[in-house]
Order: sequence, then structure tokens, then C-alpha cells
Amino acid sequence: MKNLLSMDDVTNEEIMTILQRAAEFEAGAKPQLEKEYFVANLFFEPSTRTKTSFESAERRIGATVIPFDAGFSSVLKGETLYDTVKTLQQSGIDAVIIRHKEDAYYKKLLQGIDVSIINAGDGAGQHPSQSLLDLYTIFKEFGKFEGINVTIAGDVSHSRVAKSDAIALTRLGATINFVCPPAWQGEYEAHHNWDELLGQSDVIMLLRVQHERNAAYEGFTVETYRDQYGLTVAREKHMKKGAIIMHPAPINRGVEIDSELVEHERSRIFAQMKNGLFIRMAIVEHILKGRG
Amino acid sequence: MKNLLSMDDVTNEEIMTILQRAAEFEAGAKPQLEKEYFVANLFFEPSTRTKTSFESAERRIGATVIPFDAGFSSVLKGETLYDTVKTLQQSGIDAVIIRHKEDAYYKKLLQGIDVSIINAGDGAGQHPSQSLLDLYTIFKEFGKFEGINVTIAGDVSHSRVAKSDAIALTRLGATINFVCPPAWQGEYEAHHNWDELLGQSDVIMLLRVQHERNAAYEGFTVETYRDQYGLTVAREKHMKKGAIIMHPAPINRGVEIDSELVEHERSRIFAQMKNGLFIRMAIVEHILKGRG
Amino acid sequence: MKNLLSMDDVTNEEIMTILQRAAEFEAGAKPQLEKEYFVANLFFEPSTRTKTSFESAERRIGATVIPFDAGFSSVLKGETLYDTVKTLQQSGIDAVIIRHKEDAYYKKLLQGIDVSIINAGDGAGQHPSQSLLDLYTIFKEFGKFEGINVTIAGDVSHSRVAKSDAIALTRLGATINFVCPPAWQGEYEAHHNWDELLGQSDVIMLLRVQHERNAAYEGFTVETYRDQYGLTVAREKHMKKGAIIMHPAPINRGVEIDSELVEHERSRIFAQMKNGLFIRMAIVEHILKGRG
Repeated sequence: MKNLLSMDDVTNEEIMTILQRAAEFEAGAKPQLEKEYFVANLFFEPSTRTKTSFESAERRIGATVIPFDAGFSSVLKGETLYDTVKTLQQSGIDAVIIRHKEDAYYKKLLQGIDVSIINAGDGAGQHPSQSLLDLYTIFKEFGKFEGINVTIAGDVSHSRVAKSDAIALTRLGATINFVCPPAWQGEYEAHHNWDELLGQSDVIMLLRVQHERNAAYEGFTVETYRDQYGLTVAREKHMKKGAIIMHPAPINRGVEIDSELVEHERSRIFAQMKNGLFIRMAIVEHILKGRG
Repeated sequence: MKNLLSMDDVTNEEIMTILQRAAEFEAGAKPQLEKEYFVANLFFEPSTRTKTSFESAERRIGATVIPFDAGFSSVLKGETLYDTVKTLQQSGIDAVIIRHKEDAYYKKLLQGIDVSIINAGDGAGQHPSQSLLDLYTIFKEFGKFEGINVTIAGDVSHSRVAKSDAIALTRLGATINFVCPPAWQGEYEAHHNWDELLGQSDVIMLLRVQHERNAAYEGFTVETYRDQYGLTVAREKHMKKGAIIMHPAPINRGVEIDSELVEHERSRIFAQMKNGLFIRMAIVEHILKGRG
Repeated sequence: MKNLLSMDDVTNEEIMTILQRAAEFEAGAKPQLEKEYFVANLFFEPSTRTKTSFESAERRIGATVIPFDAGFSSVLKGETLYDTVKTLQQSGIDAVIIRHKEDAYYKKLLQGIDVSIINAGDGAGQHPSQSLLDLYTIFKEFGKFEGINVTIAGDVSHSRVAKSDAIALTRLGATINFVCPPAWQGEYEAHHNWDELLGQSDVIMLLRVQHERNAAYEGFTVETYRDQYGLTVAREKHMKKGAIIMHPAPINRGVEIDSELVEHERSRIFAQMKNGLFIRMAIVEHILKGRG
């Protein structure tokens, strides 16, 4: 695997290889890079979790990280993304981790660029490292994907997490349901209330209401959204035995999920972040080792 | 000591332990961390000195530093400080150094967070690492605190340095006087002119006029402030033999202190910064070693 | 050499020493620093190439890099550059690499500062590390400077690259011509069309049209500039056999150079960036070793 761009390109076998390696790292395995590799994190959109997770993972596997400040780079002078990445390649960078607001920005980088590309989120496209950590979280919980019932709630149409997870989980044999307002279902079929889903779902995954993307539909208020689609303290009581709560975060407490549920015993929200560290160690090691 | 939050919580004995360790580092001692620790610097307000000093100190004691760009994080998406710090914990961070505009922001972090917190300045609250380097500077100069006469001049009411230093120095046996305009004395008793203080003080510490905090009172101008409260070339001549000048910096040259005095033989202003490096090595090592 | 400020100060012998060392690094030589050195990159203007190149070079020679965020430092509180650099010195920094919008900003730093200064671009002044990589690129191509014909096209008056290259190349025996609109020739003699130069030049170096410096003259449009002064696909066909194309980048594709020529066989544009890595390793090693 030279690049990690989209869950469409990652086979079930590759998924299981990365999950297995993450489990080894979680159990204390040492990284296996045999030379010094250089990586850079190009985040053109704000991020805490994904960026910090990659920064920590890269150092833990022994890579050298070259800082890149997207908000203060030659992109401000109109430089193309291709020229920026090619520049980094010429400065001896082996892999770049990119978050960018444009869907499939990486298509421009597939010809003429030798550096490996790990997609940390493209517009309303995909978010494969988040998807792999979600898969790892579910696999650790249930030991399988076949027959697992996953409900994703929120702005499905703009969510790269929903898209990546739906592709991968469906392919691995899980069942996916969406619950959201009609304005947010996009190309998916979706439920418009929770009732029939609460008691069936093994996993309930909330998506963040993305205020910064002007995602509001007519009639949207924080209160009505919480009432209709949020995971409230009252709704949690109707969840299936053994079912878990997930959220890619950052969280709007009191909007898509009640604050009391964030660290509830069902919640794997902070566990997801910890799993993300091991998954990203596995991803970056896998990509770098593949470069020889 | 799990956290360093306020000089109220640091005993005289802990102070002397940190000063002693700083002196060892200054004399060339090697750090004594027995495993790899990860730290992150969360500066939500601009800083050169404190941030650079911590960044340098952390690397000198062998910690691995994970970059965090407060101005481009999920805080922009409305994430709470608790969720941000918990996220860093889940990415394997052992300690965070935080500067934040909110007084006692750290109170929200004391439940549910395992990562150690080093306060690098909270609003108009405290600035304990600055205070410890001030103590180290005074102790190196005079070999004791008992009976040392310290005058602090400037916007005392908004100064976290003044507050931390006053607490610690008073407890250690020094005498503290303040000189400032009535509008800036806050809860303290203060003098409103220099005359009786110039010849008595062993230490004269100037505070920066914080233009960015709209600290100006009615009738304030740079000229009148300098004339009444600044340490001018003329005033320096009336200082006590052996007395020193301190300033936490950054400096407004020609406002609270005349430019000619910044590198005067009495000035310890740049020495304070150098002392800060050894003090912060001692602080971070102490906190990390305490985690086992 | 304590500092690298301007090509005026670098002798031909020093140039050849640095080029030789860069060639050794390119051939795989190991760095020769005998102790830990600390450096910081102070970029007060946006940069991708130069900053990333220095960041990568510094780590490759084994220096420890202390991050400095110019956009979030005490410079915002009105601190002078002298006080900022002196602060870094007191935090144990050995060398700073500075880009600053002010011409010859470094003159303020020559008294009272012990840290070494490497100029990464001063206003419309000089850009010595870019010049050294340009020299290395030309020397690798032709094996000499004597008699080499170099044409520089673009906003010569505002270009620190043009200035540094003209000084060094002229001194080394090359011939320099400029081609640009009259409004952009500044103090230089210049041609106002390409015709007589295309077939004679061994090196054609395009400069970026610096939209952010409001460089436009009366009648300037992207189309007329490209037609009169750009290196177009049609013009390339009239270039001399063996001649090469250079550009300090970032590039405005389709303005000063047609996009098709950026990775043309004559182009050394991306090779320049790779050469920059080895040159900067040589520069920083040379400066740090000189500190003992």
C-alpha cells in the first residue's frame, strides 16, 4: 500500500492486517522501521484529535516529523497543492498526512509525486484513519463485524466518517442504518426517528453537528435537534444490552449527545481516541515499511 | 507533585527542592528520566519566552514534545478545554503545559483527567514557573529570602507574576511593596510614588504595561506613566548598593523601564530568562518523575 | 563564519567550501557535529520551501529544533526583534534562521547577541541560502561559473534572490543579464524583451510575480506579462542547447512560466529544491561547527 486515500481502496485483508498490528502496538510491540523516515502533517483544516494522534504515532514509531504550518505556507502565495507536496518531496519527506477541504484533493497528486499520501480527511469525502480506528473499536468490543448492527446519527450527507465507515462496515458484513433529518440524508436511505433503532443497535454512533459548515436546515435549532435526533439520557435507557456509544469528536455536548453520556459506561468515545493512536502507528509504519 | 497550578499549593520545601535541582542543571547535571515521556504545550495566548523556555527545557531533559497549535485546533469548533486535554491524554500525552486567558481554567481539569498540568499562566491568576525562576534569581543573588526587600511596580491588579511572587516571597520571609497608580493596585495596598522605596529595595521588579489588556486608566499616557512609575535612568542612581532590577518581560522599552537600563549591570532581566530554562527543566523533570 | 547574512560577506572560497560539503552530503556523508546544538526558525513571512528545507536539514545534521511561531509570539505584544532573539539565546539556542520583511533587520542584532544568525530572506534585501543553492545547481550542471551566461527575468527590483545571485555570480565570473518591464528594473540595467537573450543564455531564471507585494505596474495584466516576459512553450524552443531553466519558486504557473515547462527536461526547478536541502545542511553544520 503506497497511499491510504479512501476505504474504497483498502481490502478486507489489509484492514485486518492493520487492526492486528494496532493490537500488537497496544500490547507493547516495538516499531520495526529499519531506517530514518521523514514525514510531515499538512492540516489545511483545524484539528486536535487527528493531528495530535498522528504526531504522537509518528514519533512513537520512530519517524522524524518535519513541521508544516498550513496557515503560514506558500499556499498563501497561491502555490498549488501539487507544487507544495512536490517541494516537500524534494526536501526529503517520505510521507505526508493531509487534511484538506476539497473532495478527493489527492487525485491531483497521483501523477508525478513519489511521496506517500495518507488522507486525514478530504472535504465531504472520506476519513480512512478514523474509519480504521472505528473498526478497531468495534472489533475489540464484539470480536467480529458480521451481523453487527450499527446506527449512525447526524449530518450523514456531509460526514466523511459516515461515508468511510458505511463502505467498510458494509463490506465486512455489518448492517448500517442512518438516522437524521431529511435535509441531511444526502444520497443515503435514512430513518427520521430513533424509536425502532434504539433497541436493535449494537453500536450507536453520533456525528458532530458541524456548525462551521452551515449545516443548519430550515427549522433547525439546537433544542429541536437534540429532541429529535440527539442521544439523550432518556434514550440511552432504551439501548440494547451490551450496546456501545461512539462519536468521532469533537463533541457538541448537549446537542448530538447529552453531556452525561460522554463518559458513560457504554461510551467508547475516549477509548476511540486511544485506539486511534495504535491504529495510526500501524498505518504509518505500514506505509513507510512499504517504501523500502 | 502531580500538577503545578498555583504558588498557593507549592510548599517552601518543594520550592527549595526545585531551586536546588535547577542549580544542578545549571552546573551541568544530566536529566534522570528513566522512560520516554510525552508532553504538549497548549498556549492559548501569545508567548515567546515562556513557551520557548518550556520547549527547550522539555527537550533538554529528554521528553518527546507533541506540537499543539492552539490557534488551529478543534477549540475553534467549540470543543471544551476538558475534551481537548482528555483527547491529548488518549493520544498518550503525560503532561500538558497550558497558558489560558481564563482564571483558574485548570479547576475544570482536576476531575477525570490523568495527564499532569503545568500552569504557564491563567488569566489574571498565577504564573508559577515565572515565580520559581524569579525566586531562583533572587536566591542566587542574595543567598536567602529572609529580610529581602522586593518592590514590584506596575499593573499589579492584572499581573499573575505579581500575585505568584507576592504569595511565595511573603511566605519565604521577604518583604513586598507595590508601587502603582491607584487604578492598578486592585486588592493590594500600594505606594503611589517611588521616593521612599528606591533606596530601600534590594529588588525592583517592573511589570509590563499590558496595552493589549486595555489596562489604561483615565489620564494614562506613556509619558506620564514613565514619569511617575517608570524606572528611569535618573531613578536608578538612587537605588541601593547591590540592588538588582528584574522584569518578567516582554519589555516596553521607554515605558516601564528606560531602554538603557535593560542591560545595565544591575539588570537581571536576561539572566532571569536563562534561569527560567533551568527552573523549567527542574519543574518538568519533577512532575514527570512523580508519575513513575 | 559566525553568521550568514548577505552574499556580500561570503568569499568565493567560503562559497566553494559550502558547495563541496553539500556535494558530500548529497553523496551520503554523515554530519560531524560533536555536541547537541539548538536552533530555531523565525519566519515572520510565509514560506514552505525555505522553512521546510531548513527544518529538514537541521534534523538531518542532528541539531535539536525548538519551534517558534512568529504569528503567535510576544512580537504581537510589541517586543523588539533584539529582545526576542536575546530571549532565545537565554533559552539556550545556538543559531536562529530568520525571515523578516525588513531590509537588513539583522543589523540590529550584531551588537549584544551571541546566537548565530542565518538570514533566510530580508525584505527586498538578500536571500543567501537560496543563492548558494542556485550556485550549487549551476555548478553541478556546468562544472564552473566562469563564462556562464545567466539571464534573470521578472521583478528584479524587489527580488532578494536576484540581488544575491547577481552579486555572487558576477564575482565568480559569470555574466548576468536581466529582462523585465522598465518599472521592475530598479537600479539595474535591463533588457525589455527576450529576443537577443533566449539563444545566448546557459541559464534562464524566472522570478515569481509577487502579487502579494503589489508589484503590478501600470498596464500590468497576467496575459500581457506572460506574452512579453514569461517563458512560454514557444520561447523555450529558441533556448540554447544544454541551457537550463531555474525558478526559486513558489511558481505562478502560466504567468512567469508556462505550466508545461515546470517539469520539462530543461527545468531544474524541483532539482533546486533538492539541492537546497544539501546546501542548508552544509550551511547550518558550518555555522554550528564554527561555534565550537
